[in-house]
Amino acid sequence: MIEAVQPELNGGRYRAKAIAGDQVEVTADIFRDGTQSLAAMLRLEDPSGAISEAPMRLVDNDRWSGSFSPVRIGRWRYTIEAWTDRFATWRRDLATKAAAGQVTELDLEEGVLLIEQRLPSLSKEARPPLERALTEMRAGGSAGSVASLRIAAALDTEMAEVMARNPDRTGSTTYPTLELTVDRERARSGAWYEFFPRSTGPEGEHGTFATAARHLETVAAMGFDVVYLPPIHPIGETHRKGRNNSVTAEPGDVGSPWAIGNHFGGHRSVDPNLGTLDDFDSFVGAGAQLGLEIALDFAIQCSPDHPWVAEHPEWFHHRPDGSIMHAENPPKKYEDIYPINFDTPDREGLWQELKGVVEFWISHGVTIFRVDNPHTKSFAFWEWLIDEVQTERPDVIFLSEAFTRPKVMRLLAKLGFTQSYTYFTWRNHKEELTDYLIELTRTDMVHYFRPNFFTNTQDILTEYLQTGGPSAFKIRLVLASLLSPSYGIYSGFEFYENLPLREGSEEYLNSEKYELRHRDWTKEDGTLIPYIRRINQVRRQNPALGLLTNLRFHETHNNSVLAFSKTEAGYEPILVLIDLDSVEQQEAIITLEHWIQAGTSGYRVHELISGTTHEWSAGNNKVLLDPRIEPVRIYRVEV
Amino acid sequence: MIEAVQPELNGGRYRAKAIAGDQVEVTADIFRDGTQSLAAMLRLEDPSGAISEAPMRLVDNDRWSGSFSPVRIGRWRYTIEAWTDRFATWRRDLATKAAAGQVTELDLEEGVLLIEQRLPSLSKEARPPLERALTEMRAGGSAGSVASLRIAAALDTEMAEVMARNPDRTGSTTYPTLELTVDRERARSGAWYEFFPRSTGPEGEHGTFATAARHLETVAAMGFDVVYLPPIHPIGETHRKGRNNSVTAEPGDVGSPWAIGNHFGGHRSVDPNLGTLDDFDSFVGAGAQLGLEIALDFAIQCSPDHPWVAEHPEWFHHRPDGSIMHAENPPKKYEDIYPINFDTPDREGLWQELKGVVEFWISHGVTIFRVDNPHTKSFAFWEWLIDEVQTERPDVIFLSEAFTRPKVMRLLAKLGFTQSYTYFTWRNHKEELTDYLIELTRTDMVHYFRPNFFTNTQDILTEYLQTGGPSAFKIRLVLASLLSPSYGIYSGFEFYENLPLREGSEEYLNSEKYELRHRDWTKEDGTLIPYIRRINQVRRQNPALGLLTNLRFHETHNNSVLAFSKTEAGYEPILVLIDLDSVEQQEAIITLEHWIQAGTSGYRVHELISGTTHEWSAGNNKVLLDPRIEPVRIYRVEV
Repeated sequence: MIEAVQPELNGGRYRAKAIAGDQVEVTADIFRDGTQSLAAMLRLEDPSGAISEAPMRLVDNDRWSGSFSPVRIGRWRYTIEAWTDRFATWRRDLATKAAAGQVTELDLEEGVLLIEQRLPSLSKEARPPLERALTEMRAGGSAGSVASLRIAAALDTEMAEVMARNPDRTGSTTYPTLELTVDRERARSGAWYEFFPRSTGPEGEHGTFATAARHLETVAAMGFDVVYLPPIHPIGETHRKGRNNSVTAEPGDVGSPWAIGNHFGGHRSVDPNLGTLDDFDSFVGAGAQLGLEIALDFAIQCSPDHPWVAEHPEWFHHRPDGSIMHAENPPKKYEDIYPINFDTPDREGLWQELKGVVEFWISHGVTIFRVDNPHTKSFAFWEWLIDEVQTERPDVIFLSEAFTRPKVMRLLAKLGFTQSYTYFTWRNHKEELTDYLIELTRTDMVHYFRPNFFTNTQDILTEYLQTGGPSAFKIRLVLASLLSPSYGIYSGFEFYENLPLREGSEEYLNSEKYELRHRDWTKEDGTLIPYIRRINQVRRQNPALGLLTNLRFHETHNNSVLAFSKTEAGYEPILVLIDLDSVEQQEAIITLEHWIQAGTSGYRVHELISGTTHEWSAGNNKVLLDPRIEPVRIYRVEV
Repeated sequence: MIEAVQPELNGGRYRAKAIAGDQVEVTADIFRDGTQSLAAMLRLEDPSGAISEAPMRLVDNDRWSGSFSPVRIGRWRYTIEAWTDRFATWRRDLATKAAAGQVTELDLEEGVLLIEQRLPSLSKEARPPLERALTEMRAGGSAGSVASLRIAAALDTEMAEVMARNPDRTGSTTYPTLELTVDRERARSGAWYEFFPRSTGPEGEHGTFATAARHLETVAAMGFDVVYLPPIHPIGETHRKGRNNSVTAEPGDVGSPWAIGNHFGGHRSVDPNLGTLDDFDSFVGAGAQLGLEIALDFAIQCSPDHPWVAEHPEWFHHRPDGSIMHAENPPKKYEDIYPINFDTPDREGLWQELKGVVEFWISHGVTIFRVDNPHTKSFAFWEWLIDEVQTERPDVIFLSEAFTRPKVMRLLAKLGFTQSYTYFTWRNHKEELTDYLIELTRTDMVHYFRPNFFTNTQDILTEYLQTGGPSAFKIRLVLASLLSPSYGIYSGFEFYENLPLREGSEEYLNSEKYELRHRDWTKEDGTLIPYIRRINQVRRQNPALGLLTNLRFHETHNNSVLAFSKTEAGYEPILVLIDLDSVEQQEAIITLEHWIQAGTSGYRVHELISGTTHEWSAGNNKVLLDPRIEPVRIYRVEV
């Protein structure tokens, strides 16, 4: 029996995920009837089809474990082969009988037969220990009296090791093959920055890829890894939305980039106001020079002016009068947007076209797609698309922007999305943060769901940020960036932008979705820019912060102070304390006794925001956090 | 998507279990992309192939539930069909739009089309509400103005119900079919009594089926339901074990019944000392008249004298010198027993013969088999055997006597064993009892593993019974019989037999496995018999005690006192308090506030052992338990 294999998603229906270079552990319940000894092997096939094996060992209670470290990115296959180890069984029983003085000629003879059977299949070099043992086991012996030297030869360790390395797998059982997506490091870890290229122009002017390219330097200097752009395509004119989501646009209103397509083109075109495709290529190149990857928005929807509407009316929903249905979420109407009908009879044409769009942007240097509302499109389509794209380009990353019900979010991750937006944005209190992070780091979600924690998005300005003042921005930044290896901010966050459209709304006032928004990044005073730069520096300097499942929470004896740590072999642990109450001073009491050696009276901690060093005692340490000054401590702990 | 279906064992690889007449609940995560409403149906096939359906409803968070009550025993099949409910989606959106005053002619027209589409498939009787609604929805109406009467007709509840009962399942998804073994009540609940028929003779004489039949009256009077007999077959002579497991038998020693077979026959024969097959049939008949079912031991092993050894030497393990291997568990040897080699090339012959043995005893009225050490025989064989037997005779019960590692015990239950021996026998303390019962009643084991709690067996006299005195016997009896709906004792328990073979051993001194053991059931004074009779009476009078998963533990504010309850709709709850410390008096404080209505000042409890009635307060109640007098309270609670 081989059962309860981990990782395994839905009985092998979906692929688990790993990062190249990680140690991937595979565990299983392996057992058989009776009392015979077993052996088991992990069998691996890398993306090129190369086969290898790694031994498994019994941990306890019929649970076995083996591991491997995939180097190549792409699709790996793995399975488990297990068999009855007749030699190990014989040897185990012989040792027991020897201890009880019960070894007979027949007992030895059974071992001789097992060894002789293996001998022919071994290389010449491997044989001597077996041949030696055979000679000694056979030496002399009238029936009944078995000399201890012969028994010792039968139990010889070197011979047993050769037998174990060359097992007789007759009657072995092999588990159905499972698959694993092995991604590059950026799939797990990265600092994301979202901005609208059109907002990077001089005040009052429409920005371009050229002005946006200049902004990339600021973004890189803040320490980000990925730049995410809202759709860069031509924007519809019909039913264009005006400022603050007004249903009537004024002349000059730029419209929502998510109303994709006009007479200049659709998903394969760029908004002429931003420049040309060549300009886009230059922008991507400028990013690459700064170490920035460009992530594009992939929003499968159209403005009424999108070329597909005329060319492929069958891809849309039609009403009884023949008109095309616009998007709605009653009583809300989105007349500037036509959703795609994935039940179209031209499924083949639609899917291929959408795949073509992704491939088109990949050919222009884009390797990351932030997918808009994937949960309102066909699940089967996503599974097919991501599989198709990653078969050719396993380095391409898909981020699921699905803020929906938990089971739907999880399924999208299982279907292949590399990363996912999360509920983090709305988790503010200690208990809800802890519960959610335990779900993300201690359940089987670790095998397939990679979180990307955004502090804010163009659609989400949380009440916590609206009302908490600058310390709230620091707190949310540090939570996002140090709890999760992938995190992001949407521009404006660095300027503490916190005005909602109206009370109770999470929409921004004068949202960039409907108008240009000028910002001046040259003056850092009074902004969060230096703080962001420092936090991203701390992330880069401490590899433990690039991991997720190494997260541990610590007692602080204060419900307003969250303490967590991340550790990585070979580096000093990082301990983070955050006053979640963005207003009041809070005191935390922290003990790290499980990290320090017994008998040590104290140790040193380095606070990485202030650059100060403190002597801590082996017992309780008091830390006072005043959010008006600094709500966060990030300690590198010298243990 | 239909996912995470419960019950489902190993992705449908094994059958879940239920009892005829139970309400079987099936739950699943059911969801789709987008926001459309869904509908789902549980589809059922009974053992005769008859198909039925039961509606499922959304519970919350994409979890759906449906239930059915299987009447016929045997193999049921079930699956889930789910589909997008286009009419419900339209109706939901129309209601929202109506509230916002946004309903257009087109909105109504879409509903008209959906209704018209269903109309032809409905019976004449079902149509009027739809026809009425259609007429009213179409009444009048220049474009743009939709009268409220027309909207009300579109939202008509009766019409919606007809549409829901006659859904358009186009594009539905059906889950792979799952199977369920539906057993009779005895599979879950029963009081078992084990005895050796050969010990029922007059003092010094070998008992027979006739003397054993007389003992059945005593057993029935004690309130038992099932009588389990150790093997009744001819006993081997070669290497016969003597008294107290001595390796040499003295003349007259009766040998172990598990050393099956001699020149009189094997698994299809009865030991001539017990009588004939006809005598056995009479014994079974006598049991039936008393309401007792006879359970036979099914031990797949042979004495060296078993006819199979000569007829089918290929069914056994052979050593290099051609001799047949006896059983061993180094350094222990069992020279009186030959294990079967399930890897025999004559697998077909062996399996068929074993099945023939079971069928043979079924034809002699046996419907329960207590299977000896099933974990040392082929897993595949058990799955095949039980499936084959129950296809013809779904009333046959198999009890797994596997005291082995947890995963092996669970697998045997999944393979088809109706019931299982458990670790209960060694769980004495409050925490370990609670933990184990929570595992049995609150994990997915409830779907396949049915415990049978034995206080003792011919092989297990626990230290607790050896040293705890009479109160220990009461405590273990009540724990076994009231925690688990199936429980059993091995004879001698009623006489407080507690002498081990030697200190530290769980074997009985002068074990009945190797010698006759005379007991006198006529004198009840100083025995546990009246107490056992009362406990079995309480079980029969209180249906809640026949169930397992209705178990709840209660706080007692004392680690030596276990309190638990069982409830069943329509009956008063049963509350049990047990002083687990068999020596010292203990005080428990018990509150039943979750059972009693707010404002009630008190209630009455009836103690079922003493027959006394007490007035309890709504708050804390003190109960003093003195094990020297009575370590147990069983209350029927008047709430």
